[in-house]
Amino acid sequence: MEEIKAGPLLSQINYPADLRKLNKTDLQQVCNELRQFIIDCVSVNGGHFGASLGVVELTVALHYVMNTPDDQLVWDVGHQAYGHKILTGRRSVFHTNRKYHGLSGFPKRSESEYDAFGVGHSSTSISAALGMAIASKLKGETQRQHIAVIGDGAMTAGLPFEALNHAGVSNSNILVILNDNNMSIDPNVGALKEYLTDITTSHTYNKFRDDIWKLLGKVPGMDFQKIGSKLEASLKGMVSKSSNLFEALNMRYFGPVDGHNVIKLVETLDHLKDIPGPKLLHIKTVKGKGYDLAEQDQTLWHAPGTFDKVTGKINKKISTVAEPPKYQDVFGHSIIELAEKNPLIMGITPAMPSGCSLKYMMEVMPDRALDVGIAEQHAVTLSAGLATRGMKVFCNIYSSFMQRGYDMVVHDVAIQKLPVIFCLDRAGLVGDDGPTHHGCYDIPFMRCIPNMVVSAPMNEAELRNLMYTAQLDENKLPFVIRYPRGQGVMPEWRTPFEKIEIGKGRMIKDGEDVAILTIGHPGNFAVMACKQLQEEGLNPAHYDMRFAKPLDEELLHEIAQKFNKIITVEDGTIVGGFGSAVLEFMAAHNYTPEVHMLGIPDRLVEHGKPEELHRECGYDAKGIAEAVKKFVANVAMV
Amino acid sequence: MEEIKAGPLLSQINYPADLRKLNKTDLQQVCNELRQFIIDCVSVNGGHFGASLGVVELTVALHYVMNTPDDQLVWDVGHQAYGHKILTGRRSVFHTNRKYHGLSGFPKRSESEYDAFGVGHSSTSISAALGMAIASKLKGETQRQHIAVIGDGAMTAGLPFEALNHAGVSNSNILVILNDNNMSIDPNVGALKEYLTDITTSHTYNKFRDDIWKLLGKVPGMDFQKIGSKLEASLKGMVSKSSNLFEALNMRYFGPVDGHNVIKLVETLDHLKDIPGPKLLHIKTVKGKGYDLAEQDQTLWHAPGTFDKVTGKINKKISTVAEPPKYQDVFGHSIIELAEKNPLIMGITPAMPSGCSLKYMMEVMPDRALDVGIAEQHAVTLSAGLATRGMKVFCNIYSSFMQRGYDMVVHDVAIQKLPVIFCLDRAGLVGDDGPTHHGCYDIPFMRCIPNMVVSAPMNEAELRNLMYTAQLDENKLPFVIRYPRGQGVMPEWRTPFEKIEIGKGRMIKDGEDVAILTIGHPGNFAVMACKQLQEEGLNPAHYDMRFAKPLDEELLHEIAQKFNKIITVEDGTIVGGFGSAVLEFMAAHNYTPEVHMLGIPDRLVEHGKPEELHRECGYDAKGIAEAVKKFVANVAMV
Repeated sequence: MEEIKAGPLLSQINYPADLRKLNKTDLQQVCNELRQFIIDCVSVNGGHFGASLGVVELTVALHYVMNTPDDQLVWDVGHQAYGHKILTGRRSVFHTNRKYHGLSGFPKRSESEYDAFGVGHSSTSISAALGMAIASKLKGETQRQHIAVIGDGAMTAGLPFEALNHAGVSNSNILVILNDNNMSIDPNVGALKEYLTDITTSHTYNKFRDDIWKLLGKVPGMDFQKIGSKLEASLKGMVSKSSNLFEALNMRYFGPVDGHNVIKLVETLDHLKDIPGPKLLHIKTVKGKGYDLAEQDQTLWHAPGTFDKVTGKINKKISTVAEPPKYQDVFGHSIIELAEKNPLIMGITPAMPSGCSLKYMMEVMPDRALDVGIAEQHAVTLSAGLATRGMKVFCNIYSSFMQRGYDMVVHDVAIQKLPVIFCLDRAGLVGDDGPTHHGCYDIPFMRCIPNMVVSAPMNEAELRNLMYTAQLDENKLPFVIRYPRGQGVMPEWRTPFEKIEIGKGRMIKDGEDVAILTIGHPGNFAVMACKQLQEEGLNPAHYDMRFAKPLDEELLHEIAQKFNKIITVEDGTIVGGFGSAVLEFMAAHNYTPEVHMLGIPDRLVEHGKPEELHRECGYDAKGIAEAVKKFVANVAMV
Repeated sequence: MEEIKAGPLLSQINYPADLRKLNKTDLQQVCNELRQFIIDCVSVNGGHFGASLGVVELTVALHYVMNTPDDQLVWDVGHQAYGHKILTGRRSVFHTNRKYHGLSGFPKRSESEYDAFGVGHSSTSISAALGMAIASKLKGETQRQHIAVIGDGAMTAGLPFEALNHAGVSNSNILVILNDNNMSIDPNVGALKEYLTDITTSHTYNKFRDDIWKLLGKVPGMDFQKIGSKLEASLKGMVSKSSNLFEALNMRYFGPVDGHNVIKLVETLDHLKDIPGPKLLHIKTVKGKGYDLAEQDQTLWHAPGTFDKVTGKINKKISTVAEPPKYQDVFGHSIIELAEKNPLIMGITPAMPSGCSLKYMMEVMPDRALDVGIAEQHAVTLSAGLATRGMKVFCNIYSSFMQRGYDMVVHDVAIQKLPVIFCLDRAGLVGDDGPTHHGCYDIPFMRCIPNMVVSAPMNEAELRNLMYTAQLDENKLPFVIRYPRGQGVMPEWRTPFEKIEIGKGRMIKDGEDVAILTIGHPGNFAVMACKQLQEEGLNPAHYDMRFAKPLDEELLHEIAQKFNKIITVEDGTIVGGFGSAVLEFMAAHNYTPEVHMLGIPDRLVEHGKPEELHRECGYDAKGIAEAVKKFVANVAMV
């Protein structure tokens, strides 16, 4: 990986202070060079693409007008902040973006003082910036600006609405910039999106004006000749103000403005800087702007991997052998198979139809597979409502995003014992996206809830069988199925569906010395470890427990009676996770084996390839083998 | 507790089918009798009061017009559903409301087929009803109605907005009834509230009309005489439609309607039944309607306890000795003491200023103590934003409501290592409100997050000292302080502030035989148990561990080296909680004591007095003493 060469203006900009020395007339050139730099970098290094291209002009305008880092700039989600990173001291290391020990793919407070707030999950920016603005108000810092840049996709979440409801009465100096491009990762959905289109196209205004004209026509003595364009302009101002959703929430509304006109943006921001109080600037942008292919297929080019920047050919791993599928695709195709047989099955995703592969079902069964937007809370409670009417709902949410719908899992699903099926995609260490996206905590936060089933498949066939089991009428419980991002292990994955008894594990390999208890995909690491250990003369037993809850108590009694040493392995935190469940069983039944727990340690794990991170955390095949050897040799492991 | 006598019409209504036999002209009389019945019941039995009085007419109208239980009626929050319960087969047992083994204070699916969705936490109703409506659409049940009744207070949460964003494009048959009374438990706050006042009073319309008039006055030839009331009416219709926030989200808007005019409500609902698609009916009601005192002080009369219905005198427990204060009040007064010394301290509550006692600080430091509305997600991320600017934020959220802001704790606070202080009120078994409100899960869901401190005070002085410690500059970590609803143990509670070393427990009593490790208020139960056990010749040791994270490892080493038998006690679930943390420590250090864990079992615990529930769960003084005796005698305890 080499440093990418920047254009003549960009190469002189190390910090926004350098940018501010330029003339306004140079800014378009800076934008062009910045855009090219992003294309050059992402094409060879991968990463998020379309979002950052869409906000090049906004990024340049913001750092030109605002006094960053004193002024507080919060990028919602943050995958659009590449331009921001490049302009704020990180151009020369930008080629390490999203690499192990390199720059984070998201703004991060520990990385730069220009990153006012760490992000990754969407929709937090208004609340965060409002907090900053209220702090400034209390401190008497009246000149400080607080800016949240948020996409229309992120606006469908509840949190920004909660924040606007507060901001509108806060009398604090906050500027929300609504970056309206009709997209999140997939096309944005919902009534708000249609509303934004409406105000952009003046649809409501036009209808209103026609009605007024018609009405005035009925007034005797009314002379249309004399109603000039001046009246129309005034009317337009009044209507757009009165009919504006944001004005209804007491945010002063400005826009829509062309988000690719950097001069216009600079002038607008300059103007807004002097207007106190809560305000919202609506800008229209195109995701992927300036790279034709990315403009045309915005979902594909959200994060395309590496590509040939000239031809636009996306580099795909070429393999001569049959590869195992992604767990995501196993989910996406298996739910269709199941839904074809069971008319009560539905699929729900909060804005991740491509990421979780529900898109396939949305294509063939559009009434039964729904994208509800970035709205995890709603996804869960909607699923609960559907379940009360007998529907079998597969609610697919990434493990770390499930944290958003946690109360709804407890309150709307588990307490009511509704058999909603939660497919927790991206469970475990997700890789390049890093700590905001790692799915570390779902085993503890799910298994502490009464009535929950918490399971994890070791491979594709197990995923299919757990999905099959969960939708059977005989399952009366909410049912978590957690699985990682990426490939499984079975090229021939389309196995026949088989019922798995809930709470039953299986022995993968008998042995002595020590019992390895795994849950989920790391079971495959244990298989490799066992192979290696056998070559070295050791003979561990290996059990794929499948369920963190309910535990297979029968099997655990057998294990506890046979083994004094137990190793647990999970791709989740070891605090309160599957290993702790095993400890609880042992304590409850007065067994006192030595138990060693492998999994994600109790600290933040940064980004990197999953293999790198599994190694770092010590639960890859090598880590398991080492742990077994030390354990058998009675070496202290703490 | 005796059955309350109902009036002549009400006593003949066992189910809505009986109600529907009456003439429309009888309905006001039914309302009067229902209101009186609620007053009669609540005055002697306690419970929620004002909310149910406010929706008497709506309740009668809904069950009169809609074909419940086939039509699906979801009451948001549910503390306004007393009238609904009384009309749906539960009048004769309504005196058991909120009593141990009696009716739940909230709608509950297992209690009645008329309770379409279990509630307790606010703001879930639109999502749930939308799920039901979508299920009906798929099943071809075109006549079925799906109604969500939601207060304006509950509308400030993000979830209803997520649901409206979906409902507006769902083409499903859902009716949202917005019960607008300007209140949640405390007065409602935020921009939405102002907006609702605005559309109710036609403020925007009036301003708009004046502007139009002014404008038209400038048109030559315009004759004001000839612009009649017809024009005005048309204009009003156009403006209110175009300026309506709900119409912007594609919900057809109806209202506002007087929610205490039962005939008008019946006619309106009859009309709405025939209008397909998503729609919203805005009704205006008065919380506490029909009981003067409750109308005048709506917060006090939200749930006043028992009272003399004639004089309105609320019954207070009279005590001749000095009583310990509530933990809530210790928080409420102590934060002011701290804030007087430390200008960076702020207090945040999501709509619970009275419940958590932040109201005292809001009175004396209104800029530094904020009620952000029912908006737990925003409360947390706002706190994170404040913390980035150096503020010391006490974010006070009930344990079970904290589940709503969970992702924000992980993503915005813990990952960024911001020292926000979370005061988790209502931790443990809350009593009458039951399973939706019990704070059972916070120890597991908080301690699994890296960087978190998780603590619980055993008494008032400890609460003050933990609060003091958490706001010191030397604390760099997010800091949870969990404490129960209700009284502590120290009548003389205003002790001097003392720093507690983070992660340090304390020995309450040395002993042998067995070590009792407690966290939080149940430490007092252990003190009583020890006293009793000593009288019986046993000598357990007792440690107040204070922190579930970080554990006091030094103390645990001592304990593990001295004791083979350990009992842990917590008022939280025993799945993944404090006891499990102790097990993890023991496993990590190769100690193999027998550990017995007392706490909330892994099942739903219903409502009842806290003492009744502690008894049921076996961790009151008697339960601890019994457990110690069995443990010492080696009786199997599973």
